[in-house]
Amino acid sequence: MTAQTDHNTAKPDRTVISVDAMGGDEGPAAVVAGCSLSAKLNNQIAFILHGDQDQLTPLIDRYRELRGRCEVRHAAGVVTMDDKPSQVVRTGKDSSMWSAIESVRDGEAAVAVSCGNTGALMALSMIRLRKLPGVNRPAIAVLYPSANPQGFNVMLDVGADIRADADDLMRFALMGISYARNGMDLSRPRVGLLNVGTEEHKGRSELKEAYDLIKAHEGEAEFDFVGFVEGGDISGDKADVIVTDGFTGNVAIKTGEGTARLIGIRLREAFKYSPLSRLASLLAYTSLRRLRHKIDPRRVNGGVFLGLNGTVVKSHGSADATGISAAIKLAAQLSDSRFNDKLAARVAATLPSEETQT
Amino acid sequence: MTAQTDHNTAKPDRTVISVDAMGGDEGPAAVVAGCSLSAKLNNQIAFILHGDQDQLTPLIDRYRELRGRCEVRHAAGVVTMDDKPSQVVRTGKDSSMWSAIESVRDGEAAVAVSCGNTGALMALSMIRLRKLPGVNRPAIAVLYPSANPQGFNVMLDVGADIRADADDLMRFALMGISYARNGMDLSRPRVGLLNVGTEEHKGRSELKEAYDLIKAHEGEAEFDFVGFVEGGDISGDKADVIVTDGFTGNVAIKTGEGTARLIGIRLREAFKYSPLSRLASLLAYTSLRRLRHKIDPRRVNGGVFLGLNGTVVKSHGSADATGISAAIKLAAQLSDSRFNDKLAARVAATLPSEETQT
Repeated sequence: MTAQTDHNTAKPDRTVISVDAMGGDEGPAAVVAGCSLSAKLNNQIAFILHGDQDQLTPLIDRYRELRGRCEVRHAAGVVTMDDKPSQVVRTGKDSSMWSAIESVRDGEAAVAVSCGNTGALMALSMIRLRKLPGVNRPAIAVLYPSANPQGFNVMLDVGADIRADADDLMRFALMGISYARNGMDLSRPRVGLLNVGTEEHKGRSELKEAYDLIKAHEGEAEFDFVGFVEGGDISGDKADVIVTDGFTGNVAIKTGEGTARLIGIRLREAFKYSPLSRLASLLAYTSLRRLRHKIDPRRVNGGVFLGLNGTVVKSHGSADATGISAAIKLAAQLSDSRFNDKLAARVAATLPSEETQT
Repeated sequence: MTAQTDHNTAKPDRTVISVDAMGGDEGPAAVVAGCSLSAKLNNQIAFILHGDQDQLTPLIDRYRELRGRCEVRHAAGVVTMDDKPSQVVRTGKDSSMWSAIESVRDGEAAVAVSCGNTGALMALSMIRLRKLPGVNRPAIAVLYPSANPQGFNVMLDVGADIRADADDLMRFALMGISYARNGMDLSRPRVGLLNVGTEEHKGRSELKEAYDLIKAHEGEAEFDFVGFVEGGDISGDKADVIVTDGFTGNVAIKTGEGTARLIGIRLREAFKYSPLSRLASLLAYTSLRRLRHKIDPRRVNGGVFLGLNGTVVKSHGSADATGISAAIKLAAQLSDSRFNDKLAARVAATLPSEETQT
């Protein structure tokens, strides 16, 4: 599989990220540009790039900062956005996505990054990396802009699975806590369980059950359980980790993104309305650019797959170089903090083997 | 019950709105101020105000435009935000909320407006007004700001119930269509069913079933079914009516509201950042005010309870006079269009009696 080996890539002090270079909407050029951005910002980072060698090699040669830090693994196949996950699992062995996950499985890299089809990426990750002991359902966690001092909340699951029972939700809480500790440096994260009201008697029965389960782990796992939270708290300052099932979480983040997009459109319209407002937008240019930077979804690009033997970062399908670089930065941070080992230990420590059967 | 009767209130050409004057966070003064705002804007409107007579009479006397158009029905009890719905149903007979619904039940008013406890208001409405033939689960519909020409989408259910099966979702679609026709003057609304992806094979089993049921009614009920939509489409231009269960809908609108609030805070911070940006905010004042007006949640204040023998508009608990006036405007429009009769006919026409048993 190794076509062009670069013996410098895997130096012991380097953080090696396995990158699926194909399958994103913007093509491999955007992915390679993203890698070069990251390489410029972090000289400890190195890449294993998976994809079509003939396309990738000339792209990589464009960037001086990728010299000696980028190994190409040839993979002829590409997983498209329309491919069904079940199909990819059966026939996708030659794909760049499969190959990228394989590097994590083999221990060459601690984290893989892909802009491809989410369903296929999750299915392949489950099959090739396997679930951690004590995890029944892996989850996808995202960082959502919030009023908290750290600027973001962790929310999970946002779409690994459309189901989650009380036990799954409790494990999502533990995984989310681990992510908040290692991804946001919070020593004692506050956890909220998403519901339609904050009163204890409200909501679905599995939520009441999950409430009690999470509460029971509060002491040993060093977090604060703030109880039920509502949709408005996802961007609020009441909790750092928002726990929900993948159906609700997926609808919630897409609703939030859509609302932010609509406000952006209306804001631009407002500034174009009159000569005076156009002048105002010039004067406020720096402030507005700072605002845009603050709420730019590309800056927090990356859903993280939690609960597997290895970490996979899913970048937006439409991510450009800036977005891909953000996903790589997140991957490097999680790799450096040995995040997955800590998460595995956390789940294992809170769940004695007999309890994993409940 | 009638304490101060004003024989002018119920003139035949007048639109009478039954208003629960108590139970909102801002107290009866805000409610009466809201009524006076509406009375100024619409001289066909009249009110039956329910609540403590000694508090209400002096408040009403402040406003010239309410003279001869406002009848007070004394009710000593107030339903608070913490009262449990089941309790209110048993012991709330003396409350202003109960009395407000009673005016709709008796046919004195076509629509009731309340800022009180949503759960209690829904429970009382169900008990006193009863469900329409063919409706198993009533729903709460809201208008959500969108990129559509009409500026809003109808979304339901946003929290009448946390459950909805395929059959309920299909009836939500029919009720939402009726609301979009009468509340937004759309002759052929486009309906979308909220899911985590737009592919037909995605999502929960009841959603696939609801998909087929809604599709089957497309011809006779004169709407376009656009199929599955995602969270981002709630504020988008793909559909006019978004159908979902009350749990998902409630989380979605609160997530959207929270995100909009956070962006507002960040925007104000951006304009305060430097002398230049402060000057810019002065120059853009009119444009920004126009923007605020466009996305002001108070302008679309009012969840509408659908599927009952009579219409109930739930205003935000924290609504001020502007918000309450918006809820009254919506109530008047629905009353004038004889909305509930049309909705009842629509549900009855599409659902022959044997089908209502499914």
